[in-house]
Amino acid sequence: MTDLDFIFSRRSIRCFTEEKVSENQIKLLLEAAMAAPTAMNTKPWHFVVIDDHDKLAELRKTLPFGKMDAPLAISICGDMQPIKRAVLERFWVQDCSAATENLLLAANALGLGAVWCGVHPIKTLENGVSSVLNLPKLVFPLNVIFVGHPAEEKPARTQFDQAKISHNLFDIGWEPVLDQD
Amino acid sequence: MTDLDFIFSRRSIRCFTEEKVSENQIKLLLEAAMAAPTAMNTKPWHFVVIDDHDKLAELRKTLPFGKMDAPLAISICGDMQPIKRAVLERFWVQDCSAATENLLLAANALGLGAVWCGVHPIKTLENGVSSVLNLPKLVFPLNVIFVGHPAEEKPARTQFDQAKISHNLFDIGWEPVLDQD
Repeated sequence: MTDLDFIFSRRSIRCFTEEKVSENQIKLLLEAAMAAPTAMNTKPWHFVVIDDHDKLAELRKTLPFGKMDAPLAISICGDMQPIKRAVLERFWVQDCSAATENLLLAANALGLGAVWCGVHPIKTLENGVSSVLNLPKLVFPLNVIFVGHPAEEKPARTQFDQAKISHNLFDIGWEPVLDQD
Repeated sequence: MTDLDFIFSRRSIRCFTEEKVSENQIKLLLEAAMAAPTAMNTKPWHFVVIDDHDKLAELRKTLPFGKMDAPLAISICGDMQPIKRAVLERFWVQDCSAATENLLLAANALGLGAVWCGVHPIKTLENGVSSVLNLPKLVFPLNVIFVGHPAEEKPARTQFDQAKISHNLFDIGWEPVLDQD
């Protein structure tokens, strides 16, 4: 592996042990998330940390693809309340997605496992999660990330595909040549 | 620093030397991008690698906030051509944003610098980039990432903010307590 193993070894983990995620680990996950870049540095996010047994059960009930029995969930939301310029509202999904990827990579680096369950822009899921977490009108749940100590192992990988790359113009293939690096 | 320095040390780099990015480095950046998770593993992406001097100049002309004089740009696009289920089309922005964050972190880990210039959903920018790169109708440019060897240094950081976190319900603050980890 290269020194990019911190990326390749992150996989979606859906099975967890009963061990709790520590408060310090949660703080590191959130520090990592909030290190992501955002459009004009608006940081249009809010994080709901869910470790209450009943709340986790309610979330699982709400999410058709989010039945994972994890000790922790973090819902990453777009918070439009403080955003003053309409143009910047259009970037919250990208900003919060970058923060989410940081959080997933941090979980992996800390020896934890995590899985991203999409919520926005599926209205029924948004309404369900908003109701469980009591989100105000201008706070939109992008996803629910389940986090815990992994009870499954998956090999590192990329899904690199030469066919998904063009060179200077669409449909002109890019092919690396061996060079000095 | 913790072992999450690979995240905290990534900063937006806008000044570059004239040194080229090697083919092997470009391949690693794309491998990292294509290791991101996507909704139902659809991988709805296409990457345009731009190193042609004239094409780079055209891109800079098109992007009001993308005037960086970098030797390389990569446009990360959503490719809807192979997507069969309409519901999955709604996740391409999230999927491609996660891939973008992987690419930015990989650039940083390789000693390169990079900056994310937003394109989608600003129609004039989308049209401009599509025209420069000759994108087909169902391929949407999410952004343009300028990449090169950094000619500026910035300190590692998070923008962690306790006020952006709730505990189990919105507006109930989360505060970590010191524990055994």
